Amino acid sequence: MKLYDTKTAPTPRRVRIFMAEKGIQCEIEQVDIVAGDNLSNAMRAKNPLGKIPILELDDGTCISESTAICTYLEAQYPEPPLMGTTPLAKANIMQWQQRAELYLFNQVGMCFQHTTGVFKDRMTPVPEYGREAGINAAKFMHMLDKHLAENTYLGGESYSIADITAFCAIEFARVVKLRVQPDQVHLSRWLDAMRARPSSQA
Amino acid sequence: MKLYDTKTAPTPRRVRIFMAEKGIQCEIEQVDIVAGDNLSNAMRAKNPLGKIPILELDDGTCISESTAICTYLEAQYPEPPLMGTTPLAKANIMQWQQRAELYLFNQVGMCFQHTTGVFKDRMTPVPEYGREAGINAAKFMHMLDKHLAENTYLGGESYSIADITAFCAIEFARVVKLRVQPDQVHLSRWLDAMRARPSSQA
Repeated sequence: MKLYDTKTAPTPRRVRIFMAEKGIQCEIEQVDIVAGDNLSNAMRAKNPLGKIPILELDDGTCISESTAICTYLEAQYPEPPLMGTTPLAKANIMQWQQRAELYLFNQVGMCFQHTTGVFKDRMTPVPEYGREAGINAAKFMHMLDKHLAENTYLGGESYSIADITAFCAIEFARVVKLRVQPDQVHLSRWLDAMRARPSSQA
Repeated sequence: MKLYDTKTAPTPRRVRIFMAEKGIQCEIEQVDIVAGDNLSNAMRAKNPLGKIPILELDDGTCISESTAICTYLEAQYPEPPLMGTTPLAKANIMQWQQRAELYLFNQVGMCFQHTTGVFKDRMTPVPEYGREAGINAAKFMHMLDKHLAENTYLGGESYSIADITAFCAIEFARVVKLRVQPDQVHLSRWLDAMRARPSSQA
């Protein structure tokens, strides 16, 4: 098993932390996405969308999209569970995973791509939209602070994939100068707990 | 069990089709999202993000985000499986579910919201971004046509949640004048098969 990774990018970090939490080790190959190495024919044969991360199994089968890679790893390495074990826990964790992805992680990513133009060789940046995406991310962080006033983790009492997604989004958000606000005490408490986990070094 | 639904919107349709494929019936309440009825205090108590659909269980527990609702239903009503049964099938279906959602369904939605301004009372439309989102969706449909040249369904040989997501996106894309092209014969074959399923009436 081999992970195609980009050390500085937030999306593959989600998979690295997920693997660290489960104690899974495998070969890791770095891919320079700023240089466009992810768009080579060899990489597009592994993922036609040209995105990183990609998990390549020993028989050559490739899985991309971080939630899909985590779905595979959760099924193959069930302990500790990071995606829930009962129908309701699975649903609640997936609900917060989706919220963290759509309304935070992806908004931070759009803010970064559209305001900095870092990938303008392969997309059309629309700075006005990038700023809106940043506003959306800030609004979600406000909602998350309220949620964490009554929940230890995003998905309730157990650490899960949803925490990983939100953590990678908030850490990456520094590049667009979006930070947890001093009055967001519950979000701050949660962020400190995330940073204290050994997996945060992944 | 009760589903809060908006008959004309593509997102709740994903859940309605998923339920129809499994033969699940429940009470359905219509919510007028154009009028903003989803933003009332009563509805925000069920989903703080003010989005539809919401699945309300008999004990009052609410689940939102369509993938999360489907995750719950898949666990409670496993037959027929729509999210895979082996680790690799689960991962492959989630991979295509994520691709269909991020690069097609959400792009069509952004194109609709940003070019028509239908929700300008609650968001800031950026028409230039809306047009880019439409271009992204068209590019993904081209890739999907190639994929369906070698696969019966998005996730391989079995119909799945990924087909439902892509089908709801493509049917809704008519509102932004985005249609399957005549030379996309594999995508057309798949679309005809989707429309022929009884669940397409949901």
